[in-house]
Amino acid sequence: MEAEKGSRQEKRMDISEGMSVEDLTRQFSGAGYAGKRMAEAVEIYKKMIDDPNCIKFVSAAGALIAGGMRNVFVKLIRSGAVDAMLLTGAILTHDLIEAGGVKHFQGSNKVDDIELNKKDVFRMYDVFLDKKGFAVLEDRIQEILPKFPQEEMSPRKFLSELGKYIDDENSIIKACYDMNVPIFCSSITDSMLGFQVWMYSQRNELKINSQLDIGDFFDFSWKDGKTFGMLILGGGVPKHFVPGMMQASGNSLDYIIQITMDRPEHGGVSGMQIIEAKSWGKVSHRGLVCDMRCDVTLAFPILVANVLDYLKNKGQEAKK
Amino acid sequence: MEAEKGSRQEKRMDISEGMSVEDLTRQFSGAGYAGKRMAEAVEIYKKMIDDPNCIKFVSAAGALIAGGMRNVFVKLIRSGAVDAMLLTGAILTHDLIEAGGVKHFQGSNKVDDIELNKKDVFRMYDVFLDKKGFAVLEDRIQEILPKFPQEEMSPRKFLSELGKYIDDENSIIKACYDMNVPIFCSSITDSMLGFQVWMYSQRNELKINSQLDIGDFFDFSWKDGKTFGMLILGGGVPKHFVPGMMQASGNSLDYIIQITMDRPEHGGVSGMQIIEAKSWGKVSHRGLVCDMRCDVTLAFPILVANVLDYLKNKGQEAKK
Amino acid sequence: MEAEKGSRQEKRMDISEGMSVEDLTRQFSGAGYAGKRMAEAVEIYKKMIDDPNCIKFVSAAGALIAGGMRNVFVKLIRSGAVDAMLLTGAILTHDLIEAGGVKHFQGSNKVDDIELNKKDVFRMYDVFLDKKGFAVLEDRIQEILPKFPQEEMSPRKFLSELGKYIDDENSIIKACYDMNVPIFCSSITDSMLGFQVWMYSQRNELKINSQLDIGDFFDFSWKDGKTFGMLILGGGVPKHFVPGMMQASGNSLDYIIQITMDRPEHGGVSGMQIIEAKSWGKVSHRGLVCDMRCDVTLAFPILVANVLDYLKNKGQEAKK
Amino acid sequence: MEAEKGSRQEKRMDISEGMSVEDLTRQFSGAGYAGKRMAEAVEIYKKMIDDPNCIKFVSAAGALIAGGMRNVFVKLIRSGAVDAMLLTGAILTHDLIEAGGVKHFQGSNKVDDIELNKKDVFRMYDVFLDKKGFAVLEDRIQEILPKFPQEEMSPRKFLSELGKYIDDENSIIKACYDMNVPIFCSSITDSMLGFQVWMYSQRNELKINSQLDIGDFFDFSWKDGKTFGMLILGGGVPKHFVPGMMQASGNSLDYIIQITMDRPEHGGVSGMQIIEAKSWGKVSHRGLVCDMRCDVTLAFPILVANVLDYLKNKGQEAKK
Repeated sequence: MEAEKGSRQEKRMDISEGMSVEDLTRQFSGAGYAGKRMAEAVEIYKKMIDDPNCIKFVSAAGALIAGGMRNVFVKLIRSGAVDAMLLTGAILTHDLIEAGGVKHFQGSNKVDDIELNKKDVFRMYDVFLDKKGFAVLEDRIQEILPKFPQEEMSPRKFLSELGKYIDDENSIIKACYDMNVPIFCSSITDSMLGFQVWMYSQRNELKINSQLDIGDFFDFSWKDGKTFGMLILGGGVPKHFVPGMMQASGNSLDYIIQITMDRPEHGGVSGMQIIEAKSWGKVSHRGLVCDMRCDVTLAFPILVANVLDYLKNKGQEAKK
Repeated sequence: MEAEKGSRQEKRMDISEGMSVEDLTRQFSGAGYAGKRMAEAVEIYKKMIDDPNCIKFVSAAGALIAGGMRNVFVKLIRSGAVDAMLLTGAILTHDLIEAGGVKHFQGSNKVDDIELNKKDVFRMYDVFLDKKGFAVLEDRIQEILPKFPQEEMSPRKFLSELGKYIDDENSIIKACYDMNVPIFCSSITDSMLGFQVWMYSQRNELKINSQLDIGDFFDFSWKDGKTFGMLILGGGVPKHFVPGMMQASGNSLDYIIQITMDRPEHGGVSGMQIIEAKSWGKVSHRGLVCDMRCDVTLAFPILVANVLDYLKNKGQEAKK
Repeated sequence: MEAEKGSRQEKRMDISEGMSVEDLTRQFSGAGYAGKRMAEAVEIYKKMIDDPNCIKFVSAAGALIAGGMRNVFVKLIRSGAVDAMLLTGAILTHDLIEAGGVKHFQGSNKVDDIELNKKDVFRMYDVFLDKKGFAVLEDRIQEILPKFPQEEMSPRKFLSELGKYIDDENSIIKACYDMNVPIFCSSITDSMLGFQVWMYSQRNELKINSQLDIGDFFDFSWKDGKTFGMLILGGGVPKHFVPGMMQASGNSLDYIIQITMDRPEHGGVSGMQIIEAKSWGKVSHRGLVCDMRCDVTLAFPILVANVLDYLKNKGQEAKK
Repeated sequence: MEAEKGSRQEKRMDISEGMSVEDLTRQFSGAGYAGKRMAEAVEIYKKMIDDPNCIKFVSAAGALIAGGMRNVFVKLIRSGAVDAMLLTGAILTHDLIEAGGVKHFQGSNKVDDIELNKKDVFRMYDVFLDKKGFAVLEDRIQEILPKFPQEEMSPRKFLSELGKYIDDENSIIKACYDMNVPIFCSSITDSMLGFQVWMYSQRNELKINSQLDIGDFFDFSWKDGKTFGMLILGGGVPKHFVPGMMQASGNSLDYIIQITMDRPEHGGVSGMQIIEAKSWGKVSHRGLVCDMRCDVTLAFPILVANVLDYLKNKGQEAKK
């Protein structure tokens, strides 16, 4: 969404008393840098919503549950504006820990980590978590797993099964289950959740196998006439999986929004400039791209608040 | 504003349709990382406003006029919530260029810089500026300077004089003049504005001398019973000057908010963790500190929108 | 390896003509910031080598083959100073592409990605790769796979099998096979290599299953009297897997060196301050920690050059 | 120094036992990202040395004395490979403190800043400095200043005078004085050194005026047939001053090397992509550019070690 050469868009951002988040975001289109990109991210997400053929992926990596984003994800999922999620095993683990009643809480990064360890408190920069969260997770998972089909399954299928047994309406896994939104997690092994399943699998027939997510992904997304859109929150496997599968299947993304604090200069996929995916064909030549360098905990709630407002306005107009 | 040990603040952020910026910011207090710090920055600025003895400094460095923040600064200054500004020569230069009618416009960072140069277009990442802005600046400055007192003066005094001759209500320099807010700029030499004054000084008695800002700063801020608060936007000389003068005079800041994308690990002052200023005595032991790693163009408008709302609410309550 | 309170180490770094890398590194101990940490990283790696019980892990993520680090890895592996590797599927894929004769080459980040795409050139910041590398990979993999045991296997076992069929002495996979160094890759699904195996698995009994790496990891590392050391290059799953397994099994790392450009402030695991792993018990209370914020392509060759020198000196002393 | 389209430089970096810093740097040309740029930086600096008309500027900002770089600067200056320096007032201040016998020492960033303050220890991330360093500075400066010409002078002239009174051979200011290398410092006001001169000036005729550095800079650099090269260490005023003066005088840089950890995406001058200076005409169309994102304390010693080796080799060849 870069300015056409010659357009010379000169308007500048302004603010006023009593602004709504919608007003603020509209004003951001007159800013530069991350401000402008906040407005662009919202515009691209709206286009994804307006495109009736668009499959909308949302990927997330990083300490986003620790960062308080759980309800924000749930609001987005329950709004219907997401078709599939790509998550790390850690995000799923943290979602389950909070579903089990153990919440992350606000701490400090100026602490003695050895003292914290003695108190069974785990640190993620300036957010803390009680060690007992993992015990609660273990108990709950080992109690639920016998109720699952005792067979090999993909992470996607496993996570859908798991959604049946979660009561917490504010759980991302539960919200996805309720809304029939698949969760792909090809790196589930690298998490406490993956480890708990491995423990159980040692004496049972229930297994998960990440390779099966490939077939599930193609079954889900390979449909005639579809376009593809993606919101990327942080990097890692969840970021890479969809573009990788696009490349493998000769498809490409038509809309792509990236929000990350990582850097591009060392070539890693987590911080890459999203435009470079066009050289790979992972994003189509005319694909809309927004590349925003920002902490997800600040930009994502603003994006979702705008999505909720947009859907409400669309609903009201549809009624007229 | 870090959580007390044992407070275990667990509430998590939520969003909803039709949110105001105030609602959003209140919700950010339930986030982690940059989200939480957005809420903290607003809380500290409110405390600065509520402290009748607080001298409120705002420093700014970086491409903030290019980034569309000019009106946001002006709204903050005209609200009365700033007592003194610390700016780079570049920000002053860009403010004057826009006051002269040449605006920054939205470009792209995927361009050929040599082609841009041939077209007389200057690039600041993905924002552009016409070369003619500097010609307009030169003409206007050389026309105004003969009207100034022909004597040596501090940057602060010079910039106050300059404010008399600017018509543009959206100029930062003009807004500061109107509101009697001094602008300190001890690095003015390193800017086109500083250079234009030097050119004029070659054949005239009008001179600026940065060293004189030291005396002006002490005259302005050394008053009994005062407390000191500071909002730092980006780093550089504007960030360093106030804490440096605090140290030189045995004073310290009581409130300090930093918004920057720079990193602390290499020890430079622009990216330093603001807490480390407590070791220097530049921030008081009980000083409130908020250290936010974010692009200013995203966080600053949210902060100022909250300040405007807060002042309006205070005004309405005062009337009752 | 932080200075004891009171030690007040004052010596400063110096340089001279004709310095060796060893001399330079010794001098870095007198620097601050990343310079000092370069010296610390080398010191910790030497301690890992000197500890006869230490299992030495090396994890790597990011565009490190594109970044020219392939021979550096191979030198480190063939030196005997590594006991196990943790890699991304992308690093394995890139290693195989280069083993197939298609090399990454130096490009530019100031290019038109759509033009590159038309020329079948893929970009990783300023390094390029021909699309045909992936065709070569596919041909080679589909030719080799029928020779494998046609059964389900862990990524670790699969990669060891794969090493048998690579001729290139400069291949990381081949070097690990030759040196009997296991490669764990629990995120192999998210790569072209994982995809090629999935393709083959659709009509054959050969499968890979990431969950099986957990058992293999425990078989490899759970031994009485062992200590654990780890060099982390970049973040992601390779970084997280070992500490995660340590936590799951009640073990902890005794030596840990991290080299990354990611940031800690948003709480993500890739950029986390390594010291925070002590709160989780993933690093022992007395564990030696070096946290270096640097591009791997600069720091890793310096580290490995020092390891080679150290091993040579040790060998010569042993002979006396 | 980006690869020509079609050059397809494929060689990859290698390392070996007993490498010299020269060998290592030659090998870096086969790396990507920061590694490759380390080699490019050295190549460009060599070209600056080989160009008999090149005026070689070195700018520095940040905690580089705290980071142990003092001797490295001195070696570079005394080698004759620098024609002018651009420094912050802080670097000059720290150089004087160390000349006064108070050294920075290695600390930790995991400390209580309030406790440090009570012990009169100042922190710069993980390097410490005793408060008494500033007392020593004050005593020494106030003792020396009466010996200066009691008149207004530019920072450049002031710093040259100051060099006469420093005994420490490892002082940057002394080395510049000995080698007749001017130091420009247009932001000297913003430092303890600037403050000490201001104190003295209150009752004496000796003054410094940053504006006078403009004329001194033009006198120094405006000469027929000259080319211009610059090594930029960190950002800030020292980075900006030379390109700004180039623009003001219609000149441009022909060689430019930047080493910084700052980011470009928010448009600030400290982290800008150096190539963008071509749009401004501050760097010539054919100017050689190296843009390296790295902590200066790691890359700068490697660069200077190579310069010393190169000069020695040139000297030996000249003798033949």
